[in-house]
Amino acid sequence: MAQTGLNMSRRIRRTPYTDRAEMHGVRGYSVVNHTLLPKAYAKSVEEDYWHLREHVQIWDVGCQRQVQVTGPDAATLVQLMTPRDLRGIRVGQGLYIPLIDEHAGMLNDPVLLKLSDQRFWLSIADSDVLLFAKGIAFGRGLDVVVEEPDVSPLAIQGPKAEALMKRLFGQAIGDLPYFGFATFDVLGTRQVIARSGYSKQGGFEIYLEGGHLGGDLWDLVWQAGQDLDIRPGCPNLIERIEGGLLSYGNEFTRANNPLECGFERFCHLGEDIEYIGREALLKIAKDGPERHIMGVTFGGKPVAGVAIPLAVIAEDGTPIGEITSGLWSPRLGCNIGVGMIARSHWNAGTSVIVRVAQGNQREGRVSSLPF
Amino acid sequence: MAQTGLNMSRRIRRTPYTDRAEMHGVRGYSVVNHTLLPKAYAKSVEEDYWHLREHVQIWDVGCQRQVQVTGPDAATLVQLMTPRDLRGIRVGQGLYIPLIDEHAGMLNDPVLLKLSDQRFWLSIADSDVLLFAKGIAFGRGLDVVVEEPDVSPLAIQGPKAEALMKRLFGQAIGDLPYFGFATFDVLGTRQVIARSGYSKQGGFEIYLEGGHLGGDLWDLVWQAGQDLDIRPGCPNLIERIEGGLLSYGNEFTRANNPLECGFERFCHLGEDIEYIGREALLKIAKDGPERHIMGVTFGGKPVAGVAIPLAVIAEDGTPIGEITSGLWSPRLGCNIGVGMIARSHWNAGTSVIVRVAQGNQREGRVSSLPF
Repeated sequence: MAQTGLNMSRRIRRTPYTDRAEMHGVRGYSVVNHTLLPKAYAKSVEEDYWHLREHVQIWDVGCQRQVQVTGPDAATLVQLMTPRDLRGIRVGQGLYIPLIDEHAGMLNDPVLLKLSDQRFWLSIADSDVLLFAKGIAFGRGLDVVVEEPDVSPLAIQGPKAEALMKRLFGQAIGDLPYFGFATFDVLGTRQVIARSGYSKQGGFEIYLEGGHLGGDLWDLVWQAGQDLDIRPGCPNLIERIEGGLLSYGNEFTRANNPLECGFERFCHLGEDIEYIGREALLKIAKDGPERHIMGVTFGGKPVAGVAIPLAVIAEDGTPIGEITSGLWSPRLGCNIGVGMIARSHWNAGTSVIVRVAQGNQREGRVSSLPF
Repeated sequence: MAQTGLNMSRRIRRTPYTDRAEMHGVRGYSVVNHTLLPKAYAKSVEEDYWHLREHVQIWDVGCQRQVQVTGPDAATLVQLMTPRDLRGIRVGQGLYIPLIDEHAGMLNDPVLLKLSDQRFWLSIADSDVLLFAKGIAFGRGLDVVVEEPDVSPLAIQGPKAEALMKRLFGQAIGDLPYFGFATFDVLGTRQVIARSGYSKQGGFEIYLEGGHLGGDLWDLVWQAGQDLDIRPGCPNLIERIEGGLLSYGNEFTRANNPLECGFERFCHLGEDIEYIGREALLKIAKDGPERHIMGVTFGGKPVAGVAIPLAVIAEDGTPIGEITSGLWSPRLGCNIGVGMIARSHWNAGTSVIVRVAQGNQREGRVSSLPF
């Protein structure tokens, strides 16, 4: 993976866990929501991949900022922001919600947490949903307060995560359904913990409220996980691509609508709910999307990571899409990538060509997701 | 300046000039508006500082994204977004406009360019003003289109910038007033060029529309500047702090109002214009701000760059503010910094103490800006 220096300044915010990441020798970051996201420690992406599949990791995902909406019109505002039907959401439930603009272009894909009838968090990907929510609230004159609270998630991921979390916070944590959350005693405070996280290996996210507790929370988890071979980690590129987990800004942008992203089941296509982009989305649904997120497997030497999208072309040379994230899968024994593929070629099994460098082409095949 | 690896992915966007920055051996980046901003080349910050004051530099500032507002309600929308009185703005004029939220907290500080009566660009600092504008437009039902066009500024900065620009684009470019802009022939296209830029050494910004022209534009400027000792550069930390140029996210955030930032002259404090945050701002204006952006000079060994704010305390130990950006000024022969200082101590000349590390304190003095 290409890497150059990142110049630090206050604008690139540290999280309550950055000190600990540094202690563990973090070597590389990305920047998400104006905040540091550790992306590399001492071990290779492949070593971390195998470890994540077998043990437990602690991830600084404090960059998953929360947009908190409170007040009598909170539910109204949140519904205006997403095509997902929120009429049935319960307190303690998390829902993955696409956010779109007036052209049905994707603006973000947060997890929505309903904390009470008048209090919601949107746990966001990399765009300033806070400004979007403030803009709509002002424009509509809604009775809400929209803020970014002092909440910084810490993720505990991997097959041993549940055992570790039960030790720390009690057996009841095992009862949480996927994306469900509840509050638990943490360092003498009540904190939201959800069964969620950006991997397919199972795990939890502690939505720590109170950044001053960050170091203590990290140490608590770290100590309790010593005999489980706990390691510092981060969203793992091999694991997320194998699992078909998409990333806003990488696999989809404002140029893509949710039907291209495979989010049909999160879109209410009736006219009985008002939300921004509804007209545009209904029209796209009628015509059908022109492209769709798909996997692509391709041969040749291992690819170390895709920083600039790779062109995908048909056998006759026609451009049909791009691989926006991809690399070598040690488990599948081939290169794998994800990206948007044109309708003409999106059937799983279709033969394609992947252009990995000038004049360097590889034979590939369209795949369903997850791989 | 602290530096660690930056992991590249499509989400951290390249600009039309990134290839050229790489050819010139860029060593470090920041990330602004989800886009790469070169921050270090082969020479030191101090060498680049002296060069910028004497010669001419070419800067990839493609990260200064434009929010384009077009349509019959364009002027209405832009006015709703800022406390600055826009009633007098003329086509061809650029205006520095604070953007605030409902609490009068700063959201951004773009330069507004009026391209026509129904077309504006906001050339933004590091936050997604696009989402704010889309939110207000949707909430109010305004007849506008809000987009991010394919426009990527290239800055030509330094005392020889004007000579270079006249060679390339004609003598008339010398008639542009500060922050004024017009269109010029560039590579067979018409392009907006403004007398502006993030330095106090004079210069221009070419708002290149059409990213495919980026490499050619860079080469055109580069060739024409060979006998002027042109170099690749970037916003220079020494130069900007000496000049009192502030940076959104560094010196001020949503926690600060524009009166704290020294933006009084950009705030219309009457009730005859509607904008978001007006009530809150009028209240703050009545009471007076509690702190204000100030300079601080301090002694001791040269500081290489402030990534984590330095506490500023009174002689009796009371915390009175922070230095959010700072470093050694080779010209002034002392360390300099900028940051918010409490009303009790904001008079120029006040003695203060700067805490540079645990237990390591330096004597300092509050200064007006620019230094």
